[in-house]
Amino acid sequence: MDRQVVWGFLGAAGIAEKNWASVQRSGNGILKFVGSRDVAKAQAFIDRCQASAPFEKAPEAVEGYEEILADPEIDAVYIPLPTGLRKDWVIRAAEAGKHVLCEKPCAPKAADLEEMIAACEANQVQFMDGVMFMHNPRLSEIVKVVEKGDELGKLRRIESCFSFFGEDDFSDNIRVNSKLEPLGALGDLGWYCVRMSLCCCEGDLPVRVRATLFEEKNGVPVDLRGDLIFSDSRTASFHCSFNTTLEQSCRISGTKGALTLDDFVLPCDNQKAAFTIERQEEVGEGSNFSTRSLNREVELTGEAESQKTLLFRNFGKLVLRGERDSYWPEISLLTQRVMDALLESALGDGGMVELD
Amino acid sequence: MDRQVVWGFLGAAGIAEKNWASVQRSGNGILKFVGSRDVAKAQAFIDRCQASAPFEKAPEAVEGYEEILADPEIDAVYIPLPTGLRKDWVIRAAEAGKHVLCEKPCAPKAADLEEMIAACEANQVQFMDGVMFMHNPRLSEIVKVVEKGDELGKLRRIESCFSFFGEDDFSDNIRVNSKLEPLGALGDLGWYCVRMSLCCCEGDLPVRVRATLFEEKNGVPVDLRGDLIFSDSRTASFHCSFNTTLEQSCRISGTKGALTLDDFVLPCDNQKAAFTIERQEEVGEGSNFSTRSLNREVELTGEAESQKTLLFRNFGKLVLRGERDSYWPEISLLTQRVMDALLESALGDGGMVELD
Repeated sequence: MDRQVVWGFLGAAGIAEKNWASVQRSGNGILKFVGSRDVAKAQAFIDRCQASAPFEKAPEAVEGYEEILADPEIDAVYIPLPTGLRKDWVIRAAEAGKHVLCEKPCAPKAADLEEMIAACEANQVQFMDGVMFMHNPRLSEIVKVVEKGDELGKLRRIESCFSFFGEDDFSDNIRVNSKLEPLGALGDLGWYCVRMSLCCCEGDLPVRVRATLFEEKNGVPVDLRGDLIFSDSRTASFHCSFNTTLEQSCRISGTKGALTLDDFVLPCDNQKAAFTIERQEEVGEGSNFSTRSLNREVELTGEAESQKTLLFRNFGKLVLRGERDSYWPEISLLTQRVMDALLESALGDGGMVELD
Repeated sequence: MDRQVVWGFLGAAGIAEKNWASVQRSGNGILKFVGSRDVAKAQAFIDRCQASAPFEKAPEAVEGYEEILADPEIDAVYIPLPTGLRKDWVIRAAEAGKHVLCEKPCAPKAADLEEMIAACEANQVQFMDGVMFMHNPRLSEIVKVVEKGDELGKLRRIESCFSFFGEDDFSDNIRVNSKLEPLGALGDLGWYCVRMSLCCCEGDLPVRVRATLFEEKNGVPVDLRGDLIFSDSRTASFHCSFNTTLEQSCRISGTKGALTLDDFVLPCDNQKAAFTIERQEEVGEGSNFSTRSLNREVELTGEAESQKTLLFRNFGKLVLRGERDSYWPEISLLTQRVMDALLESALGDGGMVELD
């Protein structure tokens, strides 16, 4: 067997359950440890996951995370801890020489993330955030369409939304705990909208942003709109909310056409990854423009594997090659800087906040 | 033949060409006059329209509009003049006892529209604006779905956009002439977005609004986002632009589901009027929510006639019955008041503007 990346999970959260299967399917990784403050919780997690997606050798449950970082066999750690706790453990993992796959939002503030990334760089380990759609081949196809421009024309606008409805007992949820998840819906959901916008704008930072806070709970945004103003007449807006039904649509519009996808975060179907391009036929005088649009369904079949598997496989490839790719920490930091500015606007008077 | 509404058009603008055919197909109206400052222009307009949708007796071209208002046979006038010129002619038409179908935005300011409507009321004539989708049976079906709530849950959000791309020579277009069309894209396109939001909110006014001006030309908004905050956690946002390809989509979201239509202003197909309802299956713990949505395509076949024909037919019915319906001036005025507040925000610092 080829050499495998040996993983440890710092935490047994719900999201880690999904990612257990991703490591298992990655083909280049094995999971050695699952750590939790409560070892019984880690063991129960392992039993549950092992029943549905078993590793040849069942991972071990450990109490806390130190033992994982101390183990010389461990190459990489996945950190699904709450945002408020990530900084410390990312830095300790880096100092222990472990590569770090970190859930998003990576940190409460960009300044925290800068320290985290600096620690990874000083210790020559890879940093990457857990945005799965970055690894979907659909994204690179979309970016190609945007950059090529023959179908969409000049990029003008990215409009996206990501929301789900939290039931009445939602105010006890960790997602609205101001210590653990201070960015609330902005970090949990808006992170994807901002990232998608940055990807369409080739990683340019917006010149300025503003946010309208529609609702907060426990001092945490739960329903918010953001506007990002880039150079060259490009703008992006998004809505993220725990108050509205599940939505995850994105529309990328240019001067000549628009590209839409209704499942930009979590594709509805892992076997294909479609998007639609509509182009206006013509605009006549007065209000006599034609409204028939020319739809083009683009179905990508290429790599028929889920983006969550590709996230772990791609990370694993870097580790096994002994390469580090600076794109990943850079795009996380840009995203986090936009978060800072949006939160400043949202918690202030909703005015424009400049980025530099 | 049953009695017909006798129409006069005050202006021979591009949009009137579309509405010529609507009168012709309405079944209850005939067009007697087309007025223009340049009588030759009116005659050319008549010749062109008569060739494609002929009235039994060709309408007469007249210079100016006075002769139309003075003619005792005229029941109703359609006013497609530029926004900056409408007030005077609406009031003069009302004083001449003519019912008024007025293009939108009805006026530069709500105060102007109040005077216009007061003149119509004083003279007991019907006032209605030219928003065609108000007459599409699809709209009442949508409003029923929103009000019933069993599929969408509690209404939370209306997100809409209406844009088209004006070519390079667009800065000479009347749409960005600050005297004639001072509301620019907000009036030309945003009017529909605001109206749709008001319809979904049962005519409630937003409590406050704000707008982000992305670009202006000649002091006129050409690219703008608006946010409307209603009571009961309902919000609406929209984008209107002359800088982006043709888009006219609307998404109405509740706590349980979302209704989408991609052609809310001008239906792509006059034979059917579809919309889609999506409902999330379930949201599990962690990030394990299911993203499969349950789509329901609702195709309305009922009245297989275009909304633009229904606009003129419905107006004609009121005239022929000798009835006046106060809903129409009221909804125009509410829309115009939201326009005032949005424009104040857009041309100011983009802050919140309260409505009362």
